[in-house]
Amino acid sequence: MSAEPSSPARPDPPDPDDPVFALHAGGKLEVTLRAPLRDRRDLSLAYTPGVAEVSRAIAADPDLVDVYTGRARTVAVVSDGSAVLGLGDVGPRAAMPVMEGKAMLFKHFADLDAVPLCLETTDVDAIVEIVAALAPTFGGINLEDISAPRCFEVERRLVERLDMPVFHDDQHGTAVVLLAALVNGARVVGRVMADLRVVVSGAGAAGVAVANILRRSGVGDVVVCDSRGIVGPHRDDLADHKRRLAATTNPRALTGGIADALAGADVFVGVSGGTVAEEAVASMAPDAMVFALANPDPEVHPDVAARHAAVVATGRSDFPNQINNVLAFPGIFRGAMDSGATRITESMKLAAARAIAGCVPSPSPGQIVPSVFDASVVPAVASAVAAAARHDAVTR
Amino acid sequence: MSAEPSSPARPDPPDPDDPVFALHAGGKLEVTLRAPLRDRRDLSLAYTPGVAEVSRAIAADPDLVDVYTGRARTVAVVSDGSAVLGLGDVGPRAAMPVMEGKAMLFKHFADLDAVPLCLETTDVDAIVEIVAALAPTFGGINLEDISAPRCFEVERRLVERLDMPVFHDDQHGTAVVLLAALVNGARVVGRVMADLRVVVSGAGAAGVAVANILRRSGVGDVVVCDSRGIVGPHRDDLADHKRRLAATTNPRALTGGIADALAGADVFVGVSGGTVAEEAVASMAPDAMVFALANPDPEVHPDVAARHAAVVATGRSDFPNQINNVLAFPGIFRGAMDSGATRITESMKLAAARAIAGCVPSPSPGQIVPSVFDASVVPAVASAVAAAARHDAVTR
Repeated sequence: MSAEPSSPARPDPPDPDDPVFALHAGGKLEVTLRAPLRDRRDLSLAYTPGVAEVSRAIAADPDLVDVYTGRARTVAVVSDGSAVLGLGDVGPRAAMPVMEGKAMLFKHFADLDAVPLCLETTDVDAIVEIVAALAPTFGGINLEDISAPRCFEVERRLVERLDMPVFHDDQHGTAVVLLAALVNGARVVGRVMADLRVVVSGAGAAGVAVANILRRSGVGDVVVCDSRGIVGPHRDDLADHKRRLAATTNPRALTGGIADALAGADVFVGVSGGTVAEEAVASMAPDAMVFALANPDPEVHPDVAARHAAVVATGRSDFPNQINNVLAFPGIFRGAMDSGATRITESMKLAAARAIAGCVPSPSPGQIVPSVFDASVVPAVASAVAAAARHDAVTR
Repeated sequence: MSAEPSSPARPDPPDPDDPVFALHAGGKLEVTLRAPLRDRRDLSLAYTPGVAEVSRAIAADPDLVDVYTGRARTVAVVSDGSAVLGLGDVGPRAAMPVMEGKAMLFKHFADLDAVPLCLETTDVDAIVEIVAALAPTFGGINLEDISAPRCFEVERRLVERLDMPVFHDDQHGTAVVLLAALVNGARVVGRVMADLRVVVSGAGAAGVAVANILRRSGVGDVVVCDSRGIVGPHRDDLADHKRRLAATTNPRALTGGIADALAGADVFVGVSGGTVAEEAVASMAPDAMVFALANPDPEVHPDVAARHAAVVATGRSDFPNQINNVLAFPGIFRGAMDSGATRITESMKLAAARAIAGCVPSPSPGQIVPSVFDASVVPAVASAVAAAARHDAVTR
């Protein structure tokens, strides 16, 4: 058996002693065997001639693919590399280490096998056709780091086409964890969701999904801002997805910029990568909540936000209240796939958010979300999501 | 953490106590982590924020994807399920257990990570576009169980499009191992390749590839038969790939059926699934060689063939001289990928065949090929293939 691939002439690595690059050398995943291949008998069971019996059985009853192959617990992590982390359109090769990391999280937190698939196309039709053609291979599709507005159409069309969970994590994972955090934040400051005035900074994948889940959760006053200011019917420069936001948010018909929106607001949700001035945070209502999720640089530094807000959360692991998608997607996929869900409904997402919130029995300003290493989260989320799937009658 | 997926209402398995089905329950592969995720530090190295550094490095130099991800040792095992084993067009779901088995062989024999991709399309354009779009993810493409003649065009176009090994194993894996066996068989009976008269029964993927590799190896007289008889210019019913065979084989312009072809022939190669009568085998030249590779039922039973032939080989593990592709493809991919080969050339295939033959120091009628469990085969093949790639200057 040969060892690691020998390296042909290639550029020197950026800094091989850096612990990040050292860890990434050769990649972070491996495909391993669940059954041994010690001798001819093993070969004859796992491969020919034995495997032919299994093929025949699946040919007679295609649903058996989910019993006698790994399909039912295998997720494709699909990206075109057009909106990778905060880096933007770095391309499918540069997206690969991120998708390998995502696959690690699927395995570690939910015991699901995930395969990165980074595509050399940003064409919506092509992405949809490629992913749809892979339906015999995968039991779930996690879309990742695909830029807005294409991500909306890719997801919508795949949800229509496929009889399995399809989930764009940048939208819904973020929205679910944010909602969980807000539910507990509201408990901390003694407010009910319906009365909250929420400002969302960012009208991309995450901003749209956050605004939508907040509205469905009963928050009556959601105002979304993009880089040009408040989104509303007064704007004549809006793409389709922002026109839909304009029609469903901003009930007081505000105009102006983020500072205008924040004056008197109860909640700030930053998913933009922009910045917010301290004075704007100071202008918020008493007992304000600030969720500054841009990573690595929050829209407002949490120490600054804490001078004016009762609850502060970020996307970072080195401050309290980390809003991390890993609290949501492993349990959501686990619950959806375990229950044989043919799609992920809105109530499955809301159930996931409630389950995450419920993992913090006594929320406090310093703890409105569970730790990502809290082992109770994935089973709680999976169970709630599976129950919601059965309630929605979307299980096979 | 939840355990195995709970089973929603699904049909009963065909026979869960059968050792084949028991082994296949839940599939044969798993995606595992090459680095731990114990705590926040591990997360920050393998995922955010650390992974962003790796993404940036690859964005600046896309070749680094082969250093800092698993791409360079990851193979896609691609099938449309149209020609699975001897079962035929059973579809992509029924192909899944076979491709999982193939991926096991890649891992066990060559330490390459392989991912089954079974596609819900048999359209050549679609297959080519899908596989080409996955170039950022995979370092090699193993095409499998795609029916002729589409398999020829799929492979040709992908070889043109992609800068990596693309290999249709049903064609070339079979051809390489057959050639290795014939080289040693010729040594056993004291013949030189150029003087051999060879009859190939079957003009599909394997038959075409066998005929081609034999011609390139110096065999001057190759006659191919399909289900309607000898392929030659006299036939007006030939598809393109058979017309090409007609132009390059059958130098004595034979007509008629397989029995006409076999009279006086030195070698029979069966890759058809058809049958050959004992009298036809008896009509072959003295010291004939019979390679009856149809599986599980050889074209002529090896005990019957042995009455008339000096050397007999089959595709079965329960008779001597098993012609098994696993002797070829793991070492071919290992050598090609280790050397950074941008394609698999004809001389790389010939080098693989010679290397396999060389693993049997003293061939005898009962051993013309090494055992599939001979640990010397993969390193020998990989080394020979890598050397041929460098000689052909197809390495990056």
